[in-house]
Amino acid sequence: MTITDELLRNNEQYAAQFSGPLPLPPSRHLAVLACMDARIDVYRALGLNEGESHVIRNAGGVVTEDGIRSLAISQRLLGTEEIILIHHTDCGMLTFTDDGFKQSIQDEVGIRPPWAAESFPDPFDDVTQSINRIMASPFIPQKGSVRGFVFDVATGKLIEVTV
Amino acid sequence: MTITDELLRNNEQYAAQFSGPLPLPPSRHLAVLACMDARIDVYRALGLNEGESHVIRNAGGVVTEDGIRSLAISQRLLGTEEIILIHHTDCGMLTFTDDGFKQSIQDEVGIRPPWAAESFPDPFDDVTQSINRIMASPFIPQKGSVRGFVFDVATGKLIEVTV
Repeated sequence: MTITDELLRNNEQYAAQFSGPLPLPPSRHLAVLACMDARIDVYRALGLNEGESHVIRNAGGVVTEDGIRSLAISQRLLGTEEIILIHHTDCGMLTFTDDGFKQSIQDEVGIRPPWAAESFPDPFDDVTQSINRIMASPFIPQKGSVRGFVFDVATGKLIEVTV
Repeated sequence: MTITDELLRNNEQYAAQFSGPLPLPPSRHLAVLACMDARIDVYRALGLNEGESHVIRNAGGVVTEDGIRSLAISQRLLGTEEIILIHHTDCGMLTFTDDGFKQSIQDEVGIRPPWAAESFPDPFDDVTQSINRIMASPFIPQKGSVRGFVFDVATGKLIEVTV
């Protein structure tokens, strides 16, 4: 039995207690963009319930083109207004460089990824970079509350990054 | 007080009960790629705990270039082996077309997004599309367990899509 099979059993229990459906637009008018790190349970860390906030996540919690795409859809079609960015301490993105990662893939499979890996040496600096990317984007209309944080994986606390 | 301020208060309560840190690599060797939809609490819907699985999310739960980037980092640097894809019923991506969305942005701000919006008319078909994209990617080494599901927002149940 795979882990996937095991989690599908958990989903049966979840569905047995489920009450839905909730409305499609997030009731808190919020979008969170966080790192994919397994230790960040965005709903629990922010006290969110189902239906309240979009949750976008990728390696690093970086504002990539896909992050801009998701935020643009979130704000323009589903009415969200505030953005919370979450990077974290002890992030995997601190452990490699783009050049090294891409070279290792090239060495193994013969094709160098045509995309940036988006590694970064400091999560606080990269939160600032992410905020700056949102502020510079013509596709994100709501920029009145764009705030960035580093989640401390030792304490569970969000530390705000002031730009 | 913004919603963000309110959630920061929730985070103080969360941190007060927090016990960490957990190890960086996901203990279940799993990565989930799901839609950003507010109604999908990935941890609860799959019975996951902190530290067990990477969680990647974007508008639609689509396998974009950024999805491939995140999955490549997840598998190559942090040892995940299984992939779960989650789209869902009543998805916002069903409510528009790429052409219409991009034209509306062009009309409003004068710049047409240079990226695909990745809208789709059917979540089941798009799960298949996402599986096919992973299978075709040279950057994802572990393809032994790549399974896709549609989350029913009315029942909380995951419906498997067989390719």
